Amino acid sequence: MLIVMTVGATREQVDRVTAQIEALGLKAHPIPGAQRVAIGITGNRSIVEPGLFESLPGVLEVIPVSHPYKLVSREAKPEDSVISVGGVEVGGGRFAVMAGPCSVETPEQTLTIARAARAAGAHILRGGAYKPRTSPYAFQGLGREGLAILRQVGREVGMPIVSEALDEESLEAVVESCDMIQIGARNMQNYSLLRTCGKAGKPVLLKRGLAATIEELLMAAEYVLSEGNYEVVLCERGIRTFTEHTRNTVDLAAVVAVQRLSHLPIIVDPSHGTGKRHKVLPMARAAAAVGADGLMIEVHHDPSRALSDGAQAVVPEELAQLMQQLPVILPLVGRHLTAQQRPTA
Amino acid sequence: MLIVMTVGATREQVDRVTAQIEALGLKAHPIPGAQRVAIGITGNRSIVEPGLFESLPGVLEVIPVSHPYKLVSREAKPEDSVISVGGVEVGGGRFAVMAGPCSVETPEQTLTIARAARAAGAHILRGGAYKPRTSPYAFQGLGREGLAILRQVGREVGMPIVSEALDEESLEAVVESCDMIQIGARNMQNYSLLRTCGKAGKPVLLKRGLAATIEELLMAAEYVLSEGNYEVVLCERGIRTFTEHTRNTVDLAAVVAVQRLSHLPIIVDPSHGTGKRHKVLPMARAAAAVGADGLMIEVHHDPSRALSDGAQAVVPEELAQLMQQLPVILPLVGRHLTAQQRPTA
Amino acid sequence: MLIVMTVGATREQVDRVTAQIEALGLKAHPIPGAQRVAIGITGNRSIVEPGLFESLPGVLEVIPVSHPYKLVSREAKPEDSVISVGGVEVGGGRFAVMAGPCSVETPEQTLTIARAARAAGAHILRGGAYKPRTSPYAFQGLGREGLAILRQVGREVGMPIVSEALDEESLEAVVESCDMIQIGARNMQNYSLLRTCGKAGKPVLLKRGLAATIEELLMAAEYVLSEGNYEVVLCERGIRTFTEHTRNTVDLAAVVAVQRLSHLPIIVDPSHGTGKRHKVLPMARAAAAVGADGLMIEVHHDPSRALSDGAQAVVPEELAQLMQQLPVILPLVGRHLTAQQRPTA
Amino acid sequence: MLIVMTVGATREQVDRVTAQIEALGLKAHPIPGAQRVAIGITGNRSIVEPGLFESLPGVLEVIPVSHPYKLVSREAKPEDSVISVGGVEVGGGRFAVMAGPCSVETPEQTLTIARAARAAGAHILRGGAYKPRTSPYAFQGLGREGLAILRQVGREVGMPIVSEALDEESLEAVVESCDMIQIGARNMQNYSLLRTCGKAGKPVLLKRGLAATIEELLMAAEYVLSEGNYEVVLCERGIRTFTEHTRNTVDLAAVVAVQRLSHLPIIVDPSHGTGKRHKVLPMARAAAAVGADGLMIEVHHDPSRALSDGAQAVVPEELAQLMQQLPVILPLVGRHLTAQQRPTA
Repeated sequence: MLIVMTVGATREQVDRVTAQIEALGLKAHPIPGAQRVAIGITGNRSIVEPGLFESLPGVLEVIPVSHPYKLVSREAKPEDSVISVGGVEVGGGRFAVMAGPCSVETPEQTLTIARAARAAGAHILRGGAYKPRTSPYAFQGLGREGLAILRQVGREVGMPIVSEALDEESLEAVVESCDMIQIGARNMQNYSLLRTCGKAGKPVLLKRGLAATIEELLMAAEYVLSEGNYEVVLCERGIRTFTEHTRNTVDLAAVVAVQRLSHLPIIVDPSHGTGKRHKVLPMARAAAAVGADGLMIEVHHDPSRALSDGAQAVVPEELAQLMQQLPVILPLVGRHLTAQQRPTA
Repeated sequence: MLIVMTVGATREQVDRVTAQIEALGLKAHPIPGAQRVAIGITGNRSIVEPGLFESLPGVLEVIPVSHPYKLVSREAKPEDSVISVGGVEVGGGRFAVMAGPCSVETPEQTLTIARAARAAGAHILRGGAYKPRTSPYAFQGLGREGLAILRQVGREVGMPIVSEALDEESLEAVVESCDMIQIGARNMQNYSLLRTCGKAGKPVLLKRGLAATIEELLMAAEYVLSEGNYEVVLCERGIRTFTEHTRNTVDLAAVVAVQRLSHLPIIVDPSHGTGKRHKVLPMARAAAAVGADGLMIEVHHDPSRALSDGAQAVVPEELAQLMQQLPVILPLVGRHLTAQQRPTA
Repeated sequence: MLIVMTVGATREQVDRVTAQIEALGLKAHPIPGAQRVAIGITGNRSIVEPGLFESLPGVLEVIPVSHPYKLVSREAKPEDSVISVGGVEVGGGRFAVMAGPCSVETPEQTLTIARAARAAGAHILRGGAYKPRTSPYAFQGLGREGLAILRQVGREVGMPIVSEALDEESLEAVVESCDMIQIGARNMQNYSLLRTCGKAGKPVLLKRGLAATIEELLMAAEYVLSEGNYEVVLCERGIRTFTEHTRNTVDLAAVVAVQRLSHLPIIVDPSHGTGKRHKVLPMARAAAAVGADGLMIEVHHDPSRALSDGAQAVVPEELAQLMQQLPVILPLVGRHLTAQQRPTA
Repeated sequence: MLIVMTVGATREQVDRVTAQIEALGLKAHPIPGAQRVAIGITGNRSIVEPGLFESLPGVLEVIPVSHPYKLVSREAKPEDSVISVGGVEVGGGRFAVMAGPCSVETPEQTLTIARAARAAGAHILRGGAYKPRTSPYAFQGLGREGLAILRQVGREVGMPIVSEALDEESLEAVVESCDMIQIGARNMQNYSLLRTCGKAGKPVLLKRGLAATIEELLMAAEYVLSEGNYEVVLCERGIRTFTEHTRNTVDLAAVVAVQRLSHLPIIVDPSHGTGKRHKVLPMARAAAAVGADGLMIEVHHDPSRALSDGAQAVVPEELAQLMQQLPVILPLVGRHLTAQQRPTA
């Protein structure tokens, strides 16, 4: 942490800041400049509250220098983490595609889509059973029944399954039925839920919140790791900006930023990220080219009849086309499609 | 809902859209223009998924027209709601000030601040016992012990109390001890928690999320009302923008927008909204002048020693100064300071 | 400037950074921490390019510490500047209201509105003659003819006039006819135009750009001052955010931030800031309560027939109501309505 | 345009809106719904001001339906435009790479970089002679001398040149010396400059403003086309958002959005878009994969000594690596590297 004093700060004001630093058991390093004094702080192992200094007289600005994440950082673990989701590996060069319907609607619908996704080459089956909807009056998902359908279909086609948990109750159901727990953007800072995920014993797919910085995303993951669960995959799915041509703005450079700071894999969700079907494939290709570790894509065989988010679902033919393009792009970024689950005999 | 066709849309494409509308039991109103056709839809009682039309051939754009909120809207209830918080009324012209420490730290700290707040004229005592912190390693609040302190102090000084709930467990504790449940910005779209609030039998203070539109804030409140709890106070506390001179950008015009659309009271939190002590009083005055129904302000008698958010806490003298300025401003917007709780004999 | 090294930075890497600092004639202050080294830099009079260090091996981050503005800063001139606009003073406690039509349309329209504004108590007459329009096919203003009307009306009613300049040509016309040059948000970083304003010999009203930080606004003003023109009034008129309920989001806390950093007056434009007539008065009151030095408000006697921006114009009765409320609020922030121009005998 | 009435709007209020529509020579199409009336408007050839209706009693909302751009739209010209820049074609499947230093510093520096860029396969040489700098005290570019260097070097290595114009004076110099005029983000809405570009007889590279929507970018281009210059290439270079890990947020989905709406080519500038050297190549690959028509990239052989923006310049080896990766990606999006300029004998 660096404390910058105002130009006219008195000797007494500098001394008082120094005293406050030392009172916290830290070491003060005054740097006298031509115009003003700055004071560096070292010795801090945990986070120092900027507020402890900001209101002292003569202080112009407090600039944090250290970053607060520990377990998620590359400084803690330099090599890439590889996360196994029901036998499908993600990260460390292995690129995984999670595909499936926005919502599980019926066994037939789910099976139709899952078969097409498996045939196209996708690795993990996604499908919502508990849906976070802006309106209390909108379709909220099939709940446990949806999870049962998803599990049955996943087994039949040979794909591990991932589904979103919204609260303690649905989390319990998801842990029981699924190979991976999805925590959505709205819950990225639901720390209580993250803590429970940290004890769940299943890998977690953690989506970036609409207004979350990279640092906040990493700190949310830190909540899961700090409880002992190191199996976390991050997901960039767009941030909220002033633009109107897409639902959100996919921040692809965040993939590069996260990979420099953390060993955790990060995938991209161009379906929620754009909200527009015709933009999903272009942005999926772009995500592969930027160096992401995977994709999450909504697929529906009949988008105009989907019960939720039909406008952003691609049809199976589009997924198949994408799966053929990925192997062209991935070698440029040192990646390859991960292996599909072996069908159980 | 209005469906706009492309310039070259064929007769068949228009007919297919019309057929889809009628298949949903709705009525289509084609509007032939010089260049293109638009099709109005009427008869919809619930929300129509835009995706049901967006992917049909010949469709350029789907424009939603109706708004999805019902119980929170002025169309449902034209007159202002007045919410009673432990005997202190908020809304309908009654302006309430909620003040207190960011975190409950000790009985002495809480009592010192509460006495000063009561003496200054504040109405409701705030204090965090469960703190949502970006880092799992930061001070997380005193929990139930903090609530017990808050309740004891509230009784002693004669102020109803409000504290934040983060999950089912802390919600239960808050409902038991407090006069009002606070749902923070990070949980604004924690629909499961909102539903439980809807059955809690205590008034709810619902803060706007950092990236939430007005419509999303109102829909979050709709979750609470739809479960039978009509006692909701909204709170504008800043949105996330590109600016760096404050922690968030307080969107004061949102107060006006919400009051036109909804009968629920809306207050402003300039402490979290700015994150800077020297901006709290100016923005508090501005909130009163724009017509808000109250304020939530963090106060600490020794901000440089506060365990959390010390940089944004005002000192008791500043609160007292503000409480003297409010009665000058409030009559301009048809409001007056609400009555403090009567001390129990 | 502070340079933070990575945890594993070698002695050689630190030395290379130090050498680079000294090669620039500056002084390096290494701060050895438990985990990493940081290096403070002093001795810089002008701006040091962060890029000179960011790409050196072992450098994690470069953190600028000094701010680049000079003439506009309170460190250069502690006391408030008072700007005289055709005899009407703005700043240093004097609160000025600039009011008038969005566009000058006809002599009758302008006179009707100006008379009403003068009678209500407004100080300076605004009116657009050169309009920056998003579409090349929209009404672009009356140009020199409009300025002539504005000048004639200003003299008749006894108000100094302000009008927007878009380029060198219109700037010349505005300087000739008006008491104050307005530079709009779209041109806030048109540095060539700002430089010419610096030599124009008339006060400048500089509006904040839609995506400009406080620092960029102050640096834009620095362009004008650096050419010798110290008569600059700043204007907050809303930034672009994700919100949809207003055209822009008025950042009232920016007023406080600017006033701490700079001696220049800053006013608020709630008309462009909200784009909605019913929000103009509430936000104007809020601007006064936050401590702004004035207001700019669009007025039209028949908004539904205005040639531009009718949706945000208030009617003269609303302006009159506001002018009666301001004297109630202003004393709370150490301000008072400035004096109107004396009618010439 | 669609006008939505409030639920309680009276017959008279609807009639008044209808009358206002007809008074403008347009046709009203009332759509009676179960709860409220909406009124469609047809017959409008130019833009109708929403303000003409928004303030009428009983009007809830005015929703624009038509888009205001004409000449830039695919409805005006369905096939892709191909722009020739000094013999190098951009658009219609031809992917062009513009590369060079941020600022022209010396003949040697420029020649060194240009030779490396030409050898790597880049097509057009970029180099700033007039620099828009946030601070009036920062290096402002070499002006005409810089253009002369750029022209000389361009001829020597066989590359057309592009450089930024800031105002009428520099525009004249750029038109004289360069093959393409660059209009930067800060000037995207400098309509006067755009109009002059429309008469300049040279192709224009128009960069998206930091806070500009797609529609505003297209309307800015419309200014150039409406003056008779159809040779415009658009450029996505990042928008301003809350994120801090990059200077701006590159909005790659905007490329797809623009290409659907307009026939003009659109390229991406990952150097300004990210501001960080290590993110330039990943984002450049992503831009190719999303379907952009080209790239603009800053290159410097010694970034740590660059006079401006050294932190975002890649070294020639990195450019060469990228140029080898592009031919792998481009066929996936129906594109190929355009041909370099033939060396003059």
